Amino acid sequence: MVSTKEVIVGIDMGGTSLRALVVNPQNEILAVEKTPTNVAQKPDGLIRDLAALAEDVVRAAGLRKSQLRAVSIGAPGAVDPEHGVVYHAPNLGWDAVPLGAKLGKLLRVPVFAENDVNVGLVGEHVLGAGRGAQDLVGIFAGTGIGGGIILQGQLYLGARGAAAEVGHMIVQVDGPLCGCGNHGCIEALASRTAMERDVRAAIRSGQKSCVLKLMEERGKERMTSSVLQRALRKNDPVMRKVMKRAQYYMGMLVASVVNMLDPECVVIGGGIAERLGESYVAPIRKTAYQNFLRRHDAERVKIVPGTLGDNAGPLGAVILARRRLQK
Amino acid sequence: MVSTKEVIVGIDMGGTSLRALVVNPQNEILAVEKTPTNVAQKPDGLIRDLAALAEDVVRAAGLRKSQLRAVSIGAPGAVDPEHGVVYHAPNLGWDAVPLGAKLGKLLRVPVFAENDVNVGLVGEHVLGAGRGAQDLVGIFAGTGIGGGIILQGQLYLGARGAAAEVGHMIVQVDGPLCGCGNHGCIEALASRTAMERDVRAAIRSGQKSCVLKLMEERGKERMTSSVLQRALRKNDPVMRKVMKRAQYYMGMLVASVVNMLDPECVVIGGGIAERLGESYVAPIRKTAYQNFLRRHDAERVKIVPGTLGDNAGPLGAVILARRRLQK
Repeated sequence: MVSTKEVIVGIDMGGTSLRALVVNPQNEILAVEKTPTNVAQKPDGLIRDLAALAEDVVRAAGLRKSQLRAVSIGAPGAVDPEHGVVYHAPNLGWDAVPLGAKLGKLLRVPVFAENDVNVGLVGEHVLGAGRGAQDLVGIFAGTGIGGGIILQGQLYLGARGAAAEVGHMIVQVDGPLCGCGNHGCIEALASRTAMERDVRAAIRSGQKSCVLKLMEERGKERMTSSVLQRALRKNDPVMRKVMKRAQYYMGMLVASVVNMLDPECVVIGGGIAERLGESYVAPIRKTAYQNFLRRHDAERVKIVPGTLGDNAGPLGAVILARRRLQK
Repeated sequence: MVSTKEVIVGIDMGGTSLRALVVNPQNEILAVEKTPTNVAQKPDGLIRDLAALAEDVVRAAGLRKSQLRAVSIGAPGAVDPEHGVVYHAPNLGWDAVPLGAKLGKLLRVPVFAENDVNVGLVGEHVLGAGRGAQDLVGIFAGTGIGGGIILQGQLYLGARGAAAEVGHMIVQVDGPLCGCGNHGCIEALASRTAMERDVRAAIRSGQKSCVLKLMEERGKERMTSSVLQRALRKNDPVMRKVMKRAQYYMGMLVASVVNMLDPECVVIGGGIAERLGESYVAPIRKTAYQNFLRRHDAERVKIVPGTLGDNAGPLGAVILARRRLQK
């Protein structure tokens, strides 16, 4: 039995879908709802969708709206968590949207917002693969590569709020062009987008691969994580080679990050890790351990796949909301 | 007039010389003494040299030994600052030497020890180029490349005390072999050792350069920072090309570090910066600014040469000693 105002709704705003959980004070998930992200509409329309989704998920848990304490959102972009403003979210076409204020007005409860990768890392830190660590780095690889840093138990945001852009650490000077305009960022070498580019190039150069056929069968225009997984299961030689190279780059990135920050734990999350789990992380860990400057106690640094999958973000958002409510 | 027990001696243990300052509570340097580092002797011999040097510098300031409050040492290696133990200092051939305890016994005052790069960064933070910054990264380029991180005003040491090994961030996967056994670390691309390797390779391949002649004239077997400076002044084409490339790599490193940590300030110190100052740092800054993910307010991140030179380490050691004495 949940008493008044005890549940919090956590929402992950993905580029393709909005995903909401309603969570009780014991961190139990009482209900889950999902709706497609209609990016075509203006911010106000999407904010109305978020309000409807929050109300739906509360109802799906068999609760009344009066039992909702707060809503907390992970948004894909630069967020000012103090004021709940989403400053720059290219995937949504948003710029300086006062999400917290607007959604709060619709729902009449406090609304918090934080960057989606940061909330995902907080979720893994408190409830998932990073439990117990004080110093923790999260690397989330999917379409792009994002990151988060927790130092002494707290999110580290940097002087301009621009920290933890792990995807734009340069691991190959003059390497392939990145979406950010630079060359040789890890995102341009090991994201799913980079792997798709390399698979297509290999096919164009005459190498045999089933990847394009798998995409067609599944009606996908892009090489999704499920296509990637299926191609690996079929032992596709191009996919295997491209994945091995991406894991090698990721291992070098992890080594750089550990040589710099010496955390207790590196959590590898995101779409690829969620699909492939330990089989994705094991070669990354091996390369990383071989390239730490301090190798004699390398294994003290845990390098592990995330364990919360899609729930990491909404759960982390709920945890951050609770911290803010207690302030 | 200095009253009883008010001065602290800070010493930098370099591979070639030991350098000591005696400093009053107003951070004024009252005297400086230097002696060659006799690495051939056992640790106990070198510790006796340190004791003699500390007594000499106090005397040189016209003070009595009874006026000495503490001694604080920056050591080139892995240091346990809690216990004053130097765990691993390859340049000295030291392993698990209880420097604090042994030197304390000889001098009968508290002796503190910290990694030499960390004390240098603390010096620049409190008294030099990094004044006023809360989040600060130091990159010290000379024979090798070392680093330090200050977050929220405090040295960040990492979970195993192994943080801030900036020299071993990998910026070119499969690049040149580094002294650490890996490939493509920034130290293997932009340290003075790496530059000397590239200059010698260019000369062997038939390019004209005055560097070897300058080394011979000055009786140096290695390309020191003064040789490097002189070759640049003579507009040596090989030296210019090699330096330009090293600065480009350093700029990429700074961009990576800023994309990761978003500090307020990056201090570039060490032998090369000390010789060349702004003319070394300006091209590094330019490349870094161009490669920040967040470019619109790039210039909020200061990238500056250190201002304390050789004194950064001993002064930082004194400041850390004061903090420890106040605990």
